[in-house]
This record gives sequence, structure tokens and C-alpha cells, in this order.
Amino acid sequence: MADTAITPTRAQNYSDWYQEVIKAADMAENSPVRGCMVIKPLGYALWENIQSNLDRMFKETGHVNAYFPLLIPLSLLEQEAAHVEGFAKECAVVTHHRLSAGPDGKLRPDPTSQLEEPLIIRPTSETIIGQMYAKWVKSYRDLPILINQWCNVMRWEMRTRMFLRTSEFLWQEGHTVHATAAEANEETLRMIEVYAEFAREYLALPVVKGEKTPDERFPGAVNTFTIETMMQDRKALQAGTSHFLGQNFAKAAGIQFLNQQGEQETAWTTSWGVSTRLIGGMIMTHSDDNGLVIPPRVAPTHVMILPIFRDEKERESVLNYAKELAQELRQVTFNHQPVRVKVDEREMRGGDKAWDAIKKGVPLRVEIGPRDIAKGEVFVGRRDKGPKDKLSIPRAEFIAGISTTLQEIQDVLMQRALDFRTSHTRAIDSLADFEKFFAGEEAGGGFALVHWNPAAVGHAILEKLKVTARCIPLDGPAEKGVCLFTGLPSSQRVIFARAY
Amino acid sequence: MADTAITPTRAQNYSDWYQEVIKAADMAENSPVRGCMVIKPLGYALWENIQSNLDRMFKETGHVNAYFPLLIPLSLLEQEAAHVEGFAKECAVVTHHRLSAGPDGKLRPDPTSQLEEPLIIRPTSETIIGQMYAKWVKSYRDLPILINQWCNVMRWEMRTRMFLRTSEFLWQEGHTVHATAAEANEETLRMIEVYAEFAREYLALPVVKGEKTPDERFPGAVNTFTIETMMQDRKALQAGTSHFLGQNFAKAAGIQFLNQQGEQETAWTTSWGVSTRLIGGMIMTHSDDNGLVIPPRVAPTHVMILPIFRDEKERESVLNYAKELAQELRQVTFNHQPVRVKVDEREMRGGDKAWDAIKKGVPLRVEIGPRDIAKGEVFVGRRDKGPKDKLSIPRAEFIAGISTTLQEIQDVLMQRALDFRTSHTRAIDSLADFEKFFAGEEAGGGFALVHWNPAAVGHAILEKLKVTARCIPLDGPAEKGVCLFTGLPSSQRVIFARAY
Repeated sequence: MADTAITPTRAQNYSDWYQEVIKAADMAENSPVRGCMVIKPLGYALWENIQSNLDRMFKETGHVNAYFPLLIPLSLLEQEAAHVEGFAKECAVVTHHRLSAGPDGKLRPDPTSQLEEPLIIRPTSETIIGQMYAKWVKSYRDLPILINQWCNVMRWEMRTRMFLRTSEFLWQEGHTVHATAAEANEETLRMIEVYAEFAREYLALPVVKGEKTPDERFPGAVNTFTIETMMQDRKALQAGTSHFLGQNFAKAAGIQFLNQQGEQETAWTTSWGVSTRLIGGMIMTHSDDNGLVIPPRVAPTHVMILPIFRDEKERESVLNYAKELAQELRQVTFNHQPVRVKVDEREMRGGDKAWDAIKKGVPLRVEIGPRDIAKGEVFVGRRDKGPKDKLSIPRAEFIAGISTTLQEIQDVLMQRALDFRTSHTRAIDSLADFEKFFAGEEAGGGFALVHWNPAAVGHAILEKLKVTARCIPLDGPAEKGVCLFTGLPSSQRVIFARAY
Repeated sequence: MADTAITPTRAQNYSDWYQEVIKAADMAENSPVRGCMVIKPLGYALWENIQSNLDRMFKETGHVNAYFPLLIPLSLLEQEAAHVEGFAKECAVVTHHRLSAGPDGKLRPDPTSQLEEPLIIRPTSETIIGQMYAKWVKSYRDLPILINQWCNVMRWEMRTRMFLRTSEFLWQEGHTVHATAAEANEETLRMIEVYAEFAREYLALPVVKGEKTPDERFPGAVNTFTIETMMQDRKALQAGTSHFLGQNFAKAAGIQFLNQQGEQETAWTTSWGVSTRLIGGMIMTHSDDNGLVIPPRVAPTHVMILPIFRDEKERESVLNYAKELAQELRQVTFNHQPVRVKVDEREMRGGDKAWDAIKKGVPLRVEIGPRDIAKGEVFVGRRDKGPKDKLSIPRAEFIAGISTTLQEIQDVLMQRALDFRTSHTRAIDSLADFEKFFAGEEAGGGFALVHWNPAAVGHAILEKLKVTARCIPLDGPAEKGVCLFTGLPSSQRVIFARAY
């Protein structure tokens, strides 16, 4: 057996390591459809935990769910010029509605079933939802509209990577309508805050909330806010976005309302979304050379009990003991829910079971054999520690402390990710240092905090280094300086990084 | 105001009544995409309640969720001959993956982006899932596979009706693999039982579990089981199906495993699904000429509190009182969950609010005005009774009895539906009576229980009356007889009806 469960390691080949972590954890795999993945039960259970918590947070902030059509008529998608330009190159297009046998006897799209107007599989739903909202909104009394949709979308990507960038992905998209720009702005910021809180509290991702620079905005948006987080290869990941759409989409769709003075006004809209990409970000942030690491708050299984026995006689008593322990643990609450416990009863070697739990990122492993039972102890391994760093703990103590232990692991993961980011974030004030930071062997890149002026539009060095502006941090301190690229005045530092 | 909130009434025009109920309740509406509906917040909240309860039942029976691609390569769909034949006529086909400007400057599917192989938007996922299972299953140790998927599917329907038949719909599809035919059969029956229990306990639908006659089977299945329920126009609705697929799909996809004796065997598969159609069935079963009626167990709102006041001074005290009452009610549990209460604070006439709650099917309306407060009473209307049939109840008594009252309403709806079905179900033993039952003015149709032999294949009278075999009831008594259509021996009566 190699020193690590995953080959290659992060240091050897980060990109391959990522694929191997997913494979070893049995989370997802590629499908026969180009760029589309199959989300296997462990990966989907993570998505369910992300969904249920976010959904609660959306409802607590006044939103309701609804469902809009998968297909968007081409003419609707075209209504907002910048929007369709942004998505035209990655649209899956439905052109026929029937199959029939061709001259060679083989099935093909029936030519007589060609659609008068092509339909696009939604890459996002601003246009089709806007069309409906225009019908629903008549007076100021109908506002605000605060609707969210959980669904699949499709963007025909040329280079895909599981969870991070796939042609089809699962997400939620919130779409809201407001009477004033101020209210719409407030909503945009409220939702980026919800995302930031969720990312930090549940996924243990130390995200930076920020505003996108104009070149990085959502196609058709007036302003885009983002949460950006650093992966272990020091690249940035955009983990969620919230867009202030101004009146662009409202004008295109004709969302108008009679205000309190009886005058017709155009409404203001927002949209915001996170996707299964969050799972990719979670993997790349916390996992190690032994495989997946899942923050306890979203872990489908908190505790994996591994019964250890040599013969049939031991088997029965150990299994019974394990099941009783599982039941007791399930009586305890962690983060408002019963602790999630499994007993691994499979016919496999004990060591293999332990490694399986490690590779699947289970926060706590509990080995139980006849000797542990005799001593009234459990032998516990934590996923945030080394695979051999295990500890005997009196059974009662373990049960009483389980919730604290899980939160401790959650906190350790957050702190580690934060420390990593801090140690790879640097204020940079010259192009030479900027180039050295990203191209030099020593530094290896990360988040560069540089002064920037909105007039700056691209710079050869950015293209050369494959670095982009990630965001203008919302909580960044005001600081007068000079734009690194234009020499124009700057009032705040902006984060630059390579990104997924 | 008309005598009823909904025009036309059921008796006047059942089909239009159905559309009007949906409209008055603001549950869904048609979209700009042919045959695709928008599920509005009330409709979607119902689906969420259906989903969460069914999902729990699936997990209790050992299933896990996963997610498979939306698009299916044509060659995969073709692997099972009967299957593709069944779906070819209603397939939405993706042929291009990019839009670009044509010679006229307008966007169209970019000819250079034509796909080598057309992709079909899943009408159901047996083929794509089977393809993955063939990779996952190697030995008997990998079996059974018990996976479910919640997703959208598309069947290009020519005649659509909201919730009951739409081109795109939401559903769940379970797909399982087993080592033996017996186990797969057992699974098929287990899931039709889960559906029947859910339909009865949650939607108050008195479904009949039965086996489909060969002509009504799922394309590619060896055997299809169904739950059938009677609408108020006496037509049958197939509300859920569970298929024993034998080895048809396993052979097509190559799902093979090494058995305990070390021999290669072909596996046995099942699939089962219910959809947003359940909502259509619920509407058509329980709603009345005043609008939607929702069984309490799936109602997004159990109690709508309607504050009644004449001026600002009364407004504040009544609203405060209403909110306190809401909080108290939320402490009570109905069917393992807190009672769901809303206070209608909108600026509208009290009578309009009451009618709105009626049209939206809320099980209980509670009117509260200064006089009720003074007397310590609440004025309660039940959705299963007439709109003017309201009762003053001491506040404490109402709160203490709320859970019992909700279950009572649930039971009343079930009993009514059962009585309706019973009164329109008849054993029929001659073709003349059969014709009179369905074509005669007096009887008006319903469920005809007739003797039938598997050799019977269609009969002119069935075509003429638009009647089909709905199912061979699983719980139907054995009874020797003579097939109505062939004169051959029959061992049990079969349900015939018109159907959606």
C-alpha cells in the first residue's frame, strides 16, 4: 500500500488528485453524454444536505419555490442582447419533437417534426421567468416577487471537470422583482450574505464577499456580487453569485407596475444562484492525500462504526453492541438534527473498511472490538487528523461529547482553510512583484491584493499569467493607492487570482 | 356574486371547471412553451409536501437518491426495441450545441455545431441508468441496487392538461437491480404498495392496486402494476406505476453479475414512478364548485387566520391577537409536524380574504374580530363543509382539538371519495349492460367490473365507448366467470373505465 490512499497526491498533480478523490469516494462519474456527469448516492446526499439547509435559509428570508419550463423559445432568449450574447455559444438546441425511421431504417429526428422555433435548454432562466412575471405584476401591491427554483440547467462546455464545470448541472436560481432600485439592491446583497453565511457555517469555506469588476459580470447584469474562495492549488473558485439586474430584463420582458400614484413604472429585478459546484469547492478545499474530507454539518454520515471481530461468536456480540451504540448516538443532536450514524456490516477486512470511511470523508470512525467492549471504551479516529492518530475514549464520554467533537472538526477545517488562504494572500504593488507572485516558482500564486481602477481593461500580463480580477471585497478596507495597470487612482484593493 | 366561486361548475363542464379551479387557486398556468406549464408557489408547495413524504418512505424502504443526465444518446434509447417504439413519437431532440447569427443576422442553431448523434431529452431514464448500472454491477455483492431520482422529464404530448398531462413534468423514477426474478418482483410490489399507502394516507385517494393488462404495460416491461383512482367525472386516473422489467433492459444494457457460484448471470430490474400528475388527481378528486380542496396532510397551510377589523385601532389589537394565536397553534403537532398557520394581513375586504382561502383549499379558516376576542372564541370554517357553515369555538378548545380536527377533515375527504367510487362501480356481465353503463344517460359510467380473459385483445365496443382495461385488482376476489369479450374462462373481474 502506498503512503497515501490517493495517487497522485495534491503536490504531484492537483488536477488528477481531484478526479481520484471523487472516484475513491464514489461520489460521481462521467456519463456516456459528453460533459454530463452522474451524481452517485454519496455526491447526491451531499447535495441534499446543501439543498435542505439553503432552502430553509431562503424561506427564512421570505422566498418561496416554484418551477418554470426547461425549454426557452429562442426569441425569448434574444430579448436581452448582452444576455443572449453571453450564452449563445453554449446552448443545447431542441429542433425536433419526434423520432422516425429514415430511409436506411434507422431512427432519426423526423424531418416533419421540425419545430417552427428552436427551443433552448435553459442555461439560466431570467428570460422565461421574466416573461411570466410581466403577466403577474400589475400593481405595486404585487411586489416584491420573491421566487426561487431548484432545477437542472445546461451550458455546453468544451472543457469539463466533475462538479466544477459540467454541461448539465443542478442549481437553484432565485428571481425577484421589486418596486425600487434600492430594494432590488438590498435583495442582491441579502442573498450574497446568505450564500456567504451558508458557505462558512456549513461548508467551512472562508469565502470573500465582493463585487465583480465589469468584465466579469453576469451577461445582462448591472452589477454582480460573488463569494470567492481559495482552493488548495491557490486558485480561486467563484462559489455563488447574486446579480442586480437593474431594469435590463424588466424592460426586455415588459415587467411594469402601477405605482401608488397611479403611474406606470418599470420594475427592478435580481437573480442569484449556487450550484453543485459548491461540492467541487468543498472537495478542493478540505480533502487531503487520503481522500475526501466532509465538514460535519453537511456530512451524510457523521459516525461510521467499524465492528472488529475474528469469528462468528465475536461477530454477533460486537454487531449487537455496535447497533446499540449507533442507537444511542442517534439520540444526540448535532446542529439541530440527530447525529447520523452507520454501522459498516459488510463482509470485508476491518482495515479496508476503515480506509473506505477515510476515503469517503466520514468525520468520525469508531472501531469496536471485544476488547473495547470489555473496557467500556471506543477507539475513535477523526478525519481531520492522521489515519493512525486514534484514541480510546470511555464510551459514555464519547457519546456525551459527540456534538462538541463534530463542531470541533467543523471549526478545525474552517481554520485550516482560513490559514491557508491567509498564507497565500499578499498585497502587491508592482507589476514585477505581481508577475513573480504568479509565475515565480517560489511563491506559487494565490490571492494578490492590488490597487485597481475601473478604467483598467485587461492588461497583457493578466492574459499571460492567466490571472483575472476575482472581486472587489465588500469588507475590504478603504485605502488610497494607484492602479497597478493604469496608474489611475484607486480607493481599495481588488483580489486577483487564477480561477476555475 | 354567483352561487359558486367557480364557473362553470363540475356538472356544467368538468374539464373547464378543472382549469378554473387551478386558476382560482393560483396553482399553475400555461407557459409560452407549448405544453409546458409553470408551477406557481402554491402548486409547488404541494409538490414539496408530496416529495418530502414520499422521499422519507423511499428511504425507509432502503432506497437512496442519485442523479443521472437529462440527455440520452439516441443509440442508447434504441437498445430496447419495445421501449423506443413506445416513446419515439414524443421525443424532444437536441441536434445542435451552439447558436450563431445566420445570413439574415438572426440567431439560429449554428450548422457547424450539429451533433454527431442526436440527444433525446429523457422521457424516462431506464436506458441511461441501465448503461451506468452495467458498469457498477460486477458481483452478487453489488446487488441489490436501490436508487431513486427526482427530476424533470419530457414527453412531447399533443393534447395537454395542466398537472395531468404536460410535455415537461416533474417526477421521481426508481430504478433497481436484483440478483433474482423473485427479488425484483418483490420490489415491484413493495413500491406499488408504498404508492398506494401514500395516495391513501396523504392525498386521501382511495386507489385500487392492480396489474395492467398486457396492452397497457410500460413499453419494455414484463409486467406493470398501477394504482388507479376515480375522478369526480367517473373517469379513472392512473396515479402511479411500478414495473417488473424482467431481464429486458438488463440484457439490452448488459447488466451482468458473477453469482455466488462464480457464474455470470444477467440481472433483473424494476422501475417505478409517480409525478406531478398526483396533484391533478388530488384536485379532481376532492375539489368542489367553490374551488380547490387540499387534504390536510399535504396542505401547505393548515389554518388561515382572517383578522376582521373596522378601523386602525381595532386593526392593531386584532392583528396582535391573530399572531399570538398563530404562534400557539404552531406549538401543536399534526402528523409529526408543527401545524402550518398563516395570518392574512393583506389590505383586502374580509369576505374576499375568506373566499380566497376557500378557493385555495385551506382546510381551516379562522375569523377573528373584536367580538370573538372579547368572548375568547374563534369563528371557524372547515373546507370540507359549506362556506357559510361556520362555528364559534372557545379558543382553548380549538387549539387543543386542532390536530384531531385536521385528521377528521382528512378522513371525511377519504370517505367521500370512497363513497363516490363505490356508488359508481358496478359488476357487469353483458355487453348490453356494459354499453348502457358507459353510453347511457342514466348511469354515466364509472368503474365496470367485468370478467376478462388474457386472450381478449380489444373489442369494437371498447374503441366506440373509449373505455380501456384499467387494471386487474390485486385484492380482487377470485371468481370464476366468462370473459365478456371472448367467452373464454375468467378467474377474476377486471376494472374497465374511461381514463385520463
